[in-house]
Amino acid sequence: MSLNTFGHLFRVTTWGESHGPALGATVDGCPPNVAIDEGSIQQWLDKRKPGTSKYTTQRREADKVKILSGTFEGKTTGTPVQLMIENTDQRSKDYGDIIEKFRPGHADITYYQKYGNRDYRGGGRSSARETAARVAAGGLARAALARLAPQIEITGYMTRMGAHEIDRENFDWDQIEQNPFWTPDAKAAHTWAGYLDGLRKSGSSVGAIIEVTARGVPAGLGAPVYGKLDTDLAAAMMSINAVKGVEIGEGMSAAMLTGELNADEITMGPDGPEYSSNHSGGILGGISTGQDIVIRFAVKPTSSILTTRKTITKSGESTEIITKGRHDPCVGIRAVPVGEAMMACVILDHLLLHRGQIGENQGTIG
Amino acid sequence: MSLNTFGHLFRVTTWGESHGPALGATVDGCPPNVAIDEGSIQQWLDKRKPGTSKYTTQRREADKVKILSGTFEGKTTGTPVQLMIENTDQRSKDYGDIIEKFRPGHADITYYQKYGNRDYRGGGRSSARETAARVAAGGLARAALARLAPQIEITGYMTRMGAHEIDRENFDWDQIEQNPFWTPDAKAAHTWAGYLDGLRKSGSSVGAIIEVTARGVPAGLGAPVYGKLDTDLAAAMMSINAVKGVEIGEGMSAAMLTGELNADEITMGPDGPEYSSNHSGGILGGISTGQDIVIRFAVKPTSSILTTRKTITKSGESTEIITKGRHDPCVGIRAVPVGEAMMACVILDHLLLHRGQIGENQGTIG
Amino acid sequence: MSLNTFGHLFRVTTWGESHGPALGATVDGCPPNVAIDEGSIQQWLDKRKPGTSKYTTQRREADKVKILSGTFEGKTTGTPVQLMIENTDQRSKDYGDIIEKFRPGHADITYYQKYGNRDYRGGGRSSARETAARVAAGGLARAALARLAPQIEITGYMTRMGAHEIDRENFDWDQIEQNPFWTPDAKAAHTWAGYLDGLRKSGSSVGAIIEVTARGVPAGLGAPVYGKLDTDLAAAMMSINAVKGVEIGEGMSAAMLTGELNADEITMGPDGPEYSSNHSGGILGGISTGQDIVIRFAVKPTSSILTTRKTITKSGESTEIITKGRHDPCVGIRAVPVGEAMMACVILDHLLLHRGQIGENQGTIG
Amino acid sequence: MSLNTFGHLFRVTTWGESHGPALGATVDGCPPNVAIDEGSIQQWLDKRKPGTSKYTTQRREADKVKILSGTFEGKTTGTPVQLMIENTDQRSKDYGDIIEKFRPGHADITYYQKYGNRDYRGGGRSSARETAARVAAGGLARAALARLAPQIEITGYMTRMGAHEIDRENFDWDQIEQNPFWTPDAKAAHTWAGYLDGLRKSGSSVGAIIEVTARGVPAGLGAPVYGKLDTDLAAAMMSINAVKGVEIGEGMSAAMLTGELNADEITMGPDGPEYSSNHSGGILGGISTGQDIVIRFAVKPTSSILTTRKTITKSGESTEIITKGRHDPCVGIRAVPVGEAMMACVILDHLLLHRGQIGENQGTIG
Repeated sequence: MSLNTFGHLFRVTTWGESHGPALGATVDGCPPNVAIDEGSIQQWLDKRKPGTSKYTTQRREADKVKILSGTFEGKTTGTPVQLMIENTDQRSKDYGDIIEKFRPGHADITYYQKYGNRDYRGGGRSSARETAARVAAGGLARAALARLAPQIEITGYMTRMGAHEIDRENFDWDQIEQNPFWTPDAKAAHTWAGYLDGLRKSGSSVGAIIEVTARGVPAGLGAPVYGKLDTDLAAAMMSINAVKGVEIGEGMSAAMLTGELNADEITMGPDGPEYSSNHSGGILGGISTGQDIVIRFAVKPTSSILTTRKTITKSGESTEIITKGRHDPCVGIRAVPVGEAMMACVILDHLLLHRGQIGENQGTIG
Repeated sequence: MSLNTFGHLFRVTTWGESHGPALGATVDGCPPNVAIDEGSIQQWLDKRKPGTSKYTTQRREADKVKILSGTFEGKTTGTPVQLMIENTDQRSKDYGDIIEKFRPGHADITYYQKYGNRDYRGGGRSSARETAARVAAGGLARAALARLAPQIEITGYMTRMGAHEIDRENFDWDQIEQNPFWTPDAKAAHTWAGYLDGLRKSGSSVGAIIEVTARGVPAGLGAPVYGKLDTDLAAAMMSINAVKGVEIGEGMSAAMLTGELNADEITMGPDGPEYSSNHSGGILGGISTGQDIVIRFAVKPTSSILTTRKTITKSGESTEIITKGRHDPCVGIRAVPVGEAMMACVILDHLLLHRGQIGENQGTIG
Repeated sequence: MSLNTFGHLFRVTTWGESHGPALGATVDGCPPNVAIDEGSIQQWLDKRKPGTSKYTTQRREADKVKILSGTFEGKTTGTPVQLMIENTDQRSKDYGDIIEKFRPGHADITYYQKYGNRDYRGGGRSSARETAARVAAGGLARAALARLAPQIEITGYMTRMGAHEIDRENFDWDQIEQNPFWTPDAKAAHTWAGYLDGLRKSGSSVGAIIEVTARGVPAGLGAPVYGKLDTDLAAAMMSINAVKGVEIGEGMSAAMLTGELNADEITMGPDGPEYSSNHSGGILGGISTGQDIVIRFAVKPTSSILTTRKTITKSGESTEIITKGRHDPCVGIRAVPVGEAMMACVILDHLLLHRGQIGENQGTIG
Repeated sequence: MSLNTFGHLFRVTTWGESHGPALGATVDGCPPNVAIDEGSIQQWLDKRKPGTSKYTTQRREADKVKILSGTFEGKTTGTPVQLMIENTDQRSKDYGDIIEKFRPGHADITYYQKYGNRDYRGGGRSSARETAARVAAGGLARAALARLAPQIEITGYMTRMGAHEIDRENFDWDQIEQNPFWTPDAKAAHTWAGYLDGLRKSGSSVGAIIEVTARGVPAGLGAPVYGKLDTDLAAAMMSINAVKGVEIGEGMSAAMLTGELNADEITMGPDGPEYSSNHSGGILGGISTGQDIVIRFAVKPTSSILTTRKTITKSGESTEIITKGRHDPCVGIRAVPVGEAMMACVILDHLLLHRGQIGENQGTIG
């Protein structure tokens, strides 16, 4: 990963701020002849778009993607694909004391301490708005996967909102699209609705845990040391703004297990190896096993809340601040399609890396 | 990160297997004129070395590092430093059915499925032995930090062993070096000794959580999007073998907090900004705040245990396996210096990156 | 260099085709607080723009650059700068047999053989139009250099057109801006005018040699092995379309010299080392000496000529082709600002790299 | 290219100095299951080894390569291959005034100006000795090519020594191995023998031009912009020490041609496209055509000559120097296998890159 680029062969560079003319993703290394158009990318952006329910920010952004390069007659050419989203909701407003004060829990202060400047109109590159570009790039990655490995399905969903976790007994893939929280537990969705409404009305916010599963990923993707599939997935998720923790399979809980409980036993099934469980999250030694790839990440609560907080100004004076505005009581909701997009980009990248180094000469069992 | 390289400017490539003639780290991009000799690197390797207590594997590896290049008259020249460790404990032995069987929970099967080959004498690159090279590279990074930012202190310690977590009330920096578990809680050390002895005698194993803290890191390191300091730290830790989860600051628990509880308030102190708490783990928007950098990672229990487990052979037959040998009941212990090494490498790398892009033109407060 | 990205820390990714909606450069890693606006970049694009004299293609492209991101209040923020140029001269036309036939000397055939597709409306990424994005990025690099190392002056000029070379005795820096060929030899400019007019009227084309000099570059930039300053410069120039050869200092002629003639003697001057000559082109062992950096590259004649040529079709039939249209009789002319742009990007990149690794701790003489 | 690493997927990092314990190449990303042993790499090192004729330096280096990692049972595993060459001829000697004086034409001065230090016992990383590691890596690349694309043949040879160029009419592939200059022109070999003997006896030195041809490279390798095959080849050759110019196909002479003379006409042959000539050097728009890839590079004369030269000391005093010792009167001779090695590495790297991005979906003609 460079400053604003990730990926080895499928390389995504995002650019742009929430308060400039546009933002986007420059995607290099996409395989050629992948069927793609703006509509097929737009569907994923619409999933992330603000204002789709009362539980997300009421800011209005059309988030219309334009493909500026890299396609011809409805297919990728193999050269860079420029995905641009113009900013439309740039209402001029009174920034008030935000110009001088740093918002606690935001990147305002570190940004200024690093660069010696700050675009006080928004969060700049550390704004959640940057993730729109990731979702667009992820849409392209999904289209390429549909051509290269059509059996792969990537699905994100919320497994915890603040104090409330889902009950895995209620897990139902079909529920995920049925509620505004992208949760597979219908009962949790009901509980969360009331919970979040309360938080929203009180001007508070809350964190969340998102899980992203990739089903149908072939065995053999990744590498044993730094190019591990889980390393790249962890980096991809941790690079999303507001993420503070990442888990593969058993995750942090692996620390609590004994070796007997943790290692997944192997048996031979009709289509290859089968496993008694998936504590590994589909990755052993950095390489995919053929089981579901399972990753989780925690999104912290937004710091834009209606409570007075202590802070300082650029000139070093102690003061207080309230961050007014149109905010997300649970930004984790909109992180679901972002996590999916990062998963799609990493899986595609590793498919290409694997094909580059190994070609068809994999080991076969049985 | 490439397959076996990490870092942007301070670039570490590790190479070698546990059962070949040697392993090591090729370190490129180290600043010149850093005082270094084999002894100053050896001290960190000795910390990680097997057989230092009854709680770690009784395999005997001298782990003597040799500097083959990149230094002259006791200082780095600015060119690649080759750190080599020769393998000495390569006793010929009967590998028995390991040659054909895949050990559950190990990378044996994915390695074979990826590459179409497997060095059955050991874990190859997915062996914990690879981490010796990281510790050597970390020793060099520490020496460079001592020159560039001598106020930085990097300390790793264990905060959980299986069922038992430390009590933060007992946290004492001075205790860390006083017990074989590198834990800051003397009482926990006592409990763990008995607990692990029991596990060891029964041929079982258990996971652990390691925390690594970097104190004295200046504000401004990192970047807002993919080159985030926390992204690179998460990748660095997740790339260590057996790690399944990574947390920055509040980590996964951030999901359970409200915005009021999570955001650290800012006040002005005599030496710059001060914070009411450190939920952020010293990083906001991917950039260091000047507070302590705090990262935790979970190490799964080793799968080499004295219990019969179901598995399959290369030819696809279902069978059973017991992994005999000299193993670590809690590999997390030896992961402590590895986590420290990765922290040192990442912090140094970001110091150089920051200096490259920004130089001295940072923003100052007050 | 990746497929469409070059640079280590100052990283330029160009995107877009001549016949899509737009093209541009995504520039990552620019230092913050560099004064920049569209006008200061436009001046360099205007130098490269087609149609400025009768000696360049009469295609009309406004080549207006827009800055879409990475600046605030007239300065760079340190985050990605998106430089976009919209395509305006996309007149619909009859592509005729170009759709099926490959033009000899063009990338049509290799492009198709690689990607399995071809945008027959133009040269796609192998079109000279891609270089407009480089010139825009180079404009940003120049602005950053003006802040970091204002004494550096980068100047490109033509030293050969086809059969006619300049006379170094006539070299006059002030002449370069005085003629449409950017040549420092006023007499050559006169000769070339008639020569090229003849070629243009006959529908022919001719090659050229461009030299780019960077004056005022400090000693110490570069590295001894793969990160050599001359390696990166050679790659930068060779990556320009139609370039077939690159020389540093004495260049290919160094093969004809003896050691006595080639090595520049060193004496001590009032401001540091001085050299009796500059056969080295300002680079020794991959590292700048403080003398002028001098690089030359050869641009082949465009293959778009009014002569019937043998070729084949996509279906493998032998046939003939004439490439009509509005072409450059000597594309080398418009390569001058492109070479300057690449020099600016490489020098800036190495300044940042050097500052990152070494900081202020260079060796001083005397 | 990073400081000491080149390649995208087949990544070679060289390390080590002439006067340390060892040097070598860390090769990452090699395909697995490539048959390799020390002998098959040694053959290429023996070709480059000093002291093989009276025309190369009489320094004695055994240059014995050891494979320290990345192979098992005679095949590559797909993990890093460490190729180490121990330094044996490190006779202690009196360095005399070399410690304080900079040798003109060497990197002594720039090295010191960059790093603030200098290993006066030799050229450090800028010594020709570094190229032994490249040749070892190239041997591995050749072995991988033998498995992936066995039809490819890579051959280097000298086409000019100082004032004397070969006569292309005398070109005979079989002559190359028959003379100490690796030249395909038997008559030139005869002339050069006397010419070089004279230079050697007078303590002088002379430059050379090396051409490297790759036959059998399939069409489609490379990319149109920065990842051009010719860009990577030019960088590879320019990164060799003492190289001052690089040409693809027609090279610098392309500047002298008209479009009619330069563009190679295409006809359809029994096995695909055929070309009337190869001015392009086998590359169009950065992508291989299927014709022979032809690259040339100029090696300057070594500056280690028996003539008194003006120079300065570290403390800035003007003085004189004679560089005694055992030197190569024409270092170009030993650059032949180095150029071949770089060609092998670049071609393999681009084969892997192409397979990664495109797989089998290339365009076919006819």
